[in-house]
Amino acid sequence: MREHPATLIKLKRDGHELSGDQIRDIVDGVVDGSLGDAQLGAFLMAVCCRGMSVQETGTLTTAMRDSGDVLDLDAIPGTKVDKHSTGGVGDKVSLFLAPLVAAAGVPVPMISGRGLGHTGGTIDKLHSIPGFRTDLSQDEFLEVLAECGFVMAGATGSIAPADKRMYATRDISGTVESVPLITASILSKKLAEGIDGLVLDVKCGRAAFMQSRENAEALTESLVSTGRAAGKNITALLTDMDTPLGYAVGNALEVAEIADCLHGRGPKDLVDLTLALAAEMLVLAGKASSTDEAMPILRQLVEDGSALACCRKNVERQGGDSAFLDDASALGQAPVVAPFTPSLGAVKWIEDIDPMEVGLAAMDLGAGRRAATDEIDPLVGVVLHKKVGDTLEGDEPLFTVHARDDTAAERAVERVAKAITFSQSEIGPRELILARYA
Amino acid sequence: MREHPATLIKLKRDGHELSGDQIRDIVDGVVDGSLGDAQLGAFLMAVCCRGMSVQETGTLTTAMRDSGDVLDLDAIPGTKVDKHSTGGVGDKVSLFLAPLVAAAGVPVPMISGRGLGHTGGTIDKLHSIPGFRTDLSQDEFLEVLAECGFVMAGATGSIAPADKRMYATRDISGTVESVPLITASILSKKLAEGIDGLVLDVKCGRAAFMQSRENAEALTESLVSTGRAAGKNITALLTDMDTPLGYAVGNALEVAEIADCLHGRGPKDLVDLTLALAAEMLVLAGKASSTDEAMPILRQLVEDGSALACCRKNVERQGGDSAFLDDASALGQAPVVAPFTPSLGAVKWIEDIDPMEVGLAAMDLGAGRRAATDEIDPLVGVVLHKKVGDTLEGDEPLFTVHARDDTAAERAVERVAKAITFSQSEIGPRELILARYA
Repeated sequence: MREHPATLIKLKRDGHELSGDQIRDIVDGVVDGSLGDAQLGAFLMAVCCRGMSVQETGTLTTAMRDSGDVLDLDAIPGTKVDKHSTGGVGDKVSLFLAPLVAAAGVPVPMISGRGLGHTGGTIDKLHSIPGFRTDLSQDEFLEVLAECGFVMAGATGSIAPADKRMYATRDISGTVESVPLITASILSKKLAEGIDGLVLDVKCGRAAFMQSRENAEALTESLVSTGRAAGKNITALLTDMDTPLGYAVGNALEVAEIADCLHGRGPKDLVDLTLALAAEMLVLAGKASSTDEAMPILRQLVEDGSALACCRKNVERQGGDSAFLDDASALGQAPVVAPFTPSLGAVKWIEDIDPMEVGLAAMDLGAGRRAATDEIDPLVGVVLHKKVGDTLEGDEPLFTVHARDDTAAERAVERVAKAITFSQSEIGPRELILARYA
Repeated sequence: MREHPATLIKLKRDGHELSGDQIRDIVDGVVDGSLGDAQLGAFLMAVCCRGMSVQETGTLTTAMRDSGDVLDLDAIPGTKVDKHSTGGVGDKVSLFLAPLVAAAGVPVPMISGRGLGHTGGTIDKLHSIPGFRTDLSQDEFLEVLAECGFVMAGATGSIAPADKRMYATRDISGTVESVPLITASILSKKLAEGIDGLVLDVKCGRAAFMQSRENAEALTESLVSTGRAAGKNITALLTDMDTPLGYAVGNALEVAEIADCLHGRGPKDLVDLTLALAAEMLVLAGKASSTDEAMPILRQLVEDGSALACCRKNVERQGGDSAFLDDASALGQAPVVAPFTPSLGAVKWIEDIDPMEVGLAAMDLGAGRRAATDEIDPLVGVVLHKKVGDTLEGDEPLFTVHARDDTAAERAVERVAKAITFSQSEIGPRELILARYA
């Protein structure tokens, strides 16, 4: 480090803009350990409090990307495009989207993370498929991508190691909520995938990382401008996370819902969002001149079974048992399956489903991690039978809890039941896609 | 901890006021290690950026005080009063002040620190007296205080251990400059001495901790209000640190200057400041109704040798050789003693002596520590022969460097020579005491 870490930290503390060299020195110090934990905590907090310019955020992002391997996908023909979501409850979009876009001839090299807190992670969902391997070597990653058109793997230690340490530190030190730090964390990993284009799904609402529209917009703008400054084609959708996406929340339960999507019978909101994001990816890859043009192509790939076939090929190539694509019971079932039917008296409309409460209930069942070291139970979770705006009448079940035991089931039933409110009158449709940045 | 550390850190990050329990939980976590380094760094930076209320600063101070032993001085009769200085170049006041105030019948239980950077520490100065021990047990501390009327010791690990970890963390993480953190660090240790009253010497100027008048005033106000809220009698003087105090900078050299003071022939600024602070201590202890009343008492105690006798008794009681009080050469001499005489041409007035440059030159000679682990050389340093406003003519030496070798001496001579500027016309007297808070 050319200057003492404390000198650089003080500059940021006092609101100054750091130079490229200064930011690179800090990232080097993160990787080689010359920046100690207390210094990293203080630096991250200074960024939280004082912010970073567009220039600083860009330098931080590329320095973090360059802290490890950057994949070279030149051997794979075509425009490589990926999608990143800021995460939500019931967000299993990637598992439907990747085979669908790959079926359209766009290579999708997808490196995903594990879940923490109320949001699930794609890697955890994939692990509920018996035998499915996400710990691919770099060579395997490229082979699977070449053979299947898409690949889904966890990040190896060699991808953006600076982010690994910074992310873990932010998580424990109250420095997660910072637009420049979130931007650099997301993009450093995605840019290391060697992609040409990226579609971002920035969620907004009670169960989103950014709960307010204002903060979600600020993050979206930062991600888009930083990604473009790094030379990538970026499109972003700002989407609703004020209600769970689809019906299922829990790993195997969500994978089963993906099988439904690939068979053309997925929940409307999940399918609509996946198609919208897939259409943006086709446009970025030059496979369609507009999303309007992309939509019928994508619908056809679902209807004719191409996306399903593409998914089956990948699951088997990555060591998984693809039987769940024909019969979801192949994924197994939790010991306790407890449907809940409220006594309403008369027909009611579902007014609200608090996604945070549903997500936390699923986490408590074992579908998610309270702490990074927690084990996931792939079979537990919550399946809603109704969405906001639906009617409920008679003895229809409202949701079903899948649990390890009766005690856990009772607790989850109570929590989810409280998270759902009813109205005497009709509830209008929700807006799913709030804004588009293209 | 009742809440997750990250939750408390985020509250401060977002500018909220922490409750007493929340602050005590953080301090507990500092001591028992449940607050990790990254979390402590982030918390300290959040305090730097968002500040703390008077209430929060008070709770932090008492929680840090209570993190270790609080001395019980009830067995010592009288009102126990101490002095704390925020540190400067040539500030050897404590060594003259403590025996003087003790000679007036006011018990002075003084726990001091080591120096870091350009400012020296009282403990380092004391160690230049052959045999002098500052690592006293609690029992020894009380015995020496009872027998000699004052005691000077280093902090043991049992005094404010929370401050030990916080101070070390602040030093490396760019979180030193924070009024509430400085306040709590200073007062937690002083309040743990079991004192009844405290006189603060808050310095202001280029070589002070707080360089601007505004920041020094803010720190003084915080120290005074927090100390009073903790039930102590507090008086503060805001004093000049824009020029070295006295002539000597360097440990044994400063101790020799103290011997001069005790014999009634000390430098005017050093004597004036010491008497002013001592007078405040006599007022706090009820030995005088005003500083005007205290002054002649103090002058008498110097003139009649009482302060000198008190010092001699203490030095011998703490294992030191008191010969230096009669002959400073007993302290030893550095291998190289290099006087510097500028060629001025005509009589000039000393316009400015940059105290920071003199302090850093002394540190480089080995009189201070660049890093906390550096060893001190007790014999090296700089002795000025002129003060700002003095005239210099002919072949009078301007200062003398005491060094380990010629190379070090040359470097120091060059640096100190550059730190002193001259004027063709008379320079008015400097103001030493800038404000009084009583």
